[in-house]
Amino acid sequence: MLRVVVTVWLCLLCAVSGFRPLTTSFRASQGLRSASRLQMEMAVKVGIVGATGAVGEEILKVMEDRVFPASSLTLFASEKSAGKVVKSSRFGDITLEAFSFEAASKLDVLLLAVGGDFSLEWAEKLAEAGVLVIDNSSAFRMKEGVPLVIPEINIAASKGKKLIANPNCTTAIALMALWPIHQKYKIKKAIISTYQAASGAGAPGMKELEDGMRDIVNGGEAKNEYFAHPLPYNIIPHIDVFQENQYTKEEMKIVWETRKIMSAPDMKLSCTCVRIPTLRAHSEAITLELDKTATPDEIRACLSEAEGVDVVDDPENSKYPMPINATKKYDVEVGRIRRNDVFDDKGIDIFVSGDQLLRGAALNAVIIAEMMVQ
Amino acid sequence: MLRVVVTVWLCLLCAVSGFRPLTTSFRASQGLRSASRLQMEMAVKVGIVGATGAVGEEILKVMEDRVFPASSLTLFASEKSAGKVVKSSRFGDITLEAFSFEAASKLDVLLLAVGGDFSLEWAEKLAEAGVLVIDNSSAFRMKEGVPLVIPEINIAASKGKKLIANPNCTTAIALMALWPIHQKYKIKKAIISTYQAASGAGAPGMKELEDGMRDIVNGGEAKNEYFAHPLPYNIIPHIDVFQENQYTKEEMKIVWETRKIMSAPDMKLSCTCVRIPTLRAHSEAITLELDKTATPDEIRACLSEAEGVDVVDDPENSKYPMPINATKKYDVEVGRIRRNDVFDDKGIDIFVSGDQLLRGAALNAVIIAEMMVQ
Repeated sequence: MLRVVVTVWLCLLCAVSGFRPLTTSFRASQGLRSASRLQMEMAVKVGIVGATGAVGEEILKVMEDRVFPASSLTLFASEKSAGKVVKSSRFGDITLEAFSFEAASKLDVLLLAVGGDFSLEWAEKLAEAGVLVIDNSSAFRMKEGVPLVIPEINIAASKGKKLIANPNCTTAIALMALWPIHQKYKIKKAIISTYQAASGAGAPGMKELEDGMRDIVNGGEAKNEYFAHPLPYNIIPHIDVFQENQYTKEEMKIVWETRKIMSAPDMKLSCTCVRIPTLRAHSEAITLELDKTATPDEIRACLSEAEGVDVVDDPENSKYPMPINATKKYDVEVGRIRRNDVFDDKGIDIFVSGDQLLRGAALNAVIIAEMMVQ
Repeated sequence: MLRVVVTVWLCLLCAVSGFRPLTTSFRASQGLRSASRLQMEMAVKVGIVGATGAVGEEILKVMEDRVFPASSLTLFASEKSAGKVVKSSRFGDITLEAFSFEAASKLDVLLLAVGGDFSLEWAEKLAEAGVLVIDNSSAFRMKEGVPLVIPEINIAASKGKKLIANPNCTTAIALMALWPIHQKYKIKKAIISTYQAASGAGAPGMKELEDGMRDIVNGGEAKNEYFAHPLPYNIIPHIDVFQENQYTKEEMKIVWETRKIMSAPDMKLSCTCVRIPTLRAHSEAITLELDKTATPDEIRACLSEAEGVDVVDDPENSKYPMPINATKKYDVEVGRIRRNDVFDDKGIDIFVSGDQLLRGAALNAVIIAEMMVQ
């Protein structure tokens, strides 16, 4: 049971449009995100497990930026990190704690930013103890009865639930663009090729790429430990483990999760996932066959109205989605919108870039938490 | 008119399988390439225009490696480079010359590795003067009457011609895999997303990426002059100029050239071309709808027999096409071969990596020249 009821929340929702973000490192947008910037009585006891990881750190930053209504924030990290102090612009100095069920079970909301094994061991127990658990791992995403949520699409599925799964980063980024299109024109087929950043593999992935680049610049060779092959100046069409059908699990996650989130069990889609030497923000080239005819202009108009989407589509001025612009940005960039003749007047191509640590992880989880505590 | 007839060429073709390459920097393969390693009387006067560019340098290396039957090699470069000496392991010291029609028109074979403007001005005049001109630019590729050639596919189109166009690098790499499949199973639809290296933009592109990486490693920022945006740790979905249909010219080249080379005017295909921060070798994620059903194993078998293709498809051992392995390799790597359910039992996905300076430019041109002088 969520122990605190935030009574003034909904009333204030309408009053805050145009509220300026506290920091400038994240760019402002309208709608859902403004809700969290309320100046209100702090009331919810919140925790993050995996607070020193790439996603955990982003969750803290997003909560600060969006003024998450927390009365307290508990940061759980490894035994090794326990005792260290994290300075928070909003929550003051926070001493990292080793995880304990006892401490965690006293919280209202707990965001898990750790591996699936941890989630499998603790998520359900914590949910049964009354904690609202938002799990960033893949452990429960496809489990029946556990909602898999992108709040702009299917927050309704969370109603009355205590364990909510956060989708795969590549899925979340794609679906910000696909959902508005699907609602209006119904997607029959989607063929996706990804350009995924090193940080999709967490902070160690980023470090390995940066270390390798430094080694090459200094005349040496890049080593690899975390990735299957050296990533600098290379690409690796292999993310997560291979399945029997010769797709990787990452590729299949996008198929499975899209169908679940969009309640579209018969949608035909496929994916090729490729790790590339960028640090942050995933991009995806997406070809769609729609059920209804739509012009590129109609798709552009449809996406312009969509929550969490920024249409960046001005080729004449060399403006299109790119990782360097999508990095640290809440909205997913969508551009290169054009007719794909392969599917005659039902074909549409788009290109998306989104920050996988934000929309693909931390931001999505925090918005779920915000909407659930309302 | 080709002035020299190489009489012993065809007889020797059969005798040389297994001949070892002269250098180890290029990996050996069977078939067509062996033909050029003949130890025979040198007889053909050859020239390269743009000898100091990324492609021009590769043409020289490929000719050395394949023992191109040249009696003389003339290297044309800019006025600025004229007078400098290039050391060739096979052809000795060669002094770079500024281009002159008079000198060029005395040659038997001339390979143009410069921009389209130069080709537009000189290619037809030289061909009329009797020189066999192989043009690496896009100037004549789509011109009726000018054959656009990948020798393993349509060398027959060159018969009796004096001006031959070398295809776009991304087209050439894709078609090494698509042609064998098309012959056996007929491709109805092809959807391609590319991962294109900086060297697709020539030596200055590579330099800009390396300089930018060095600047970042040293705490600075990457600058861009050659590319529309900084490329280090970024990707740019914009190669060549945008067309009215919102595709780039690079994307449309692949569509137009594929149809011409494969004599498949009705084939439906589309492409998204993306520049990525790799130095050399382009990769492509390709989804196919075939006319006839084919299993992944049948596609694998079909490609295993294909000239110029190396099937690298052992996911269990983390083996699949990658730029670091495809670089400086004659064969195009093809892997990640799997059923794509979007097109039911007619759908196939493949992933290719190929050296765009070799198969995508120099090697393709030199093999054309070899076959034409036979």
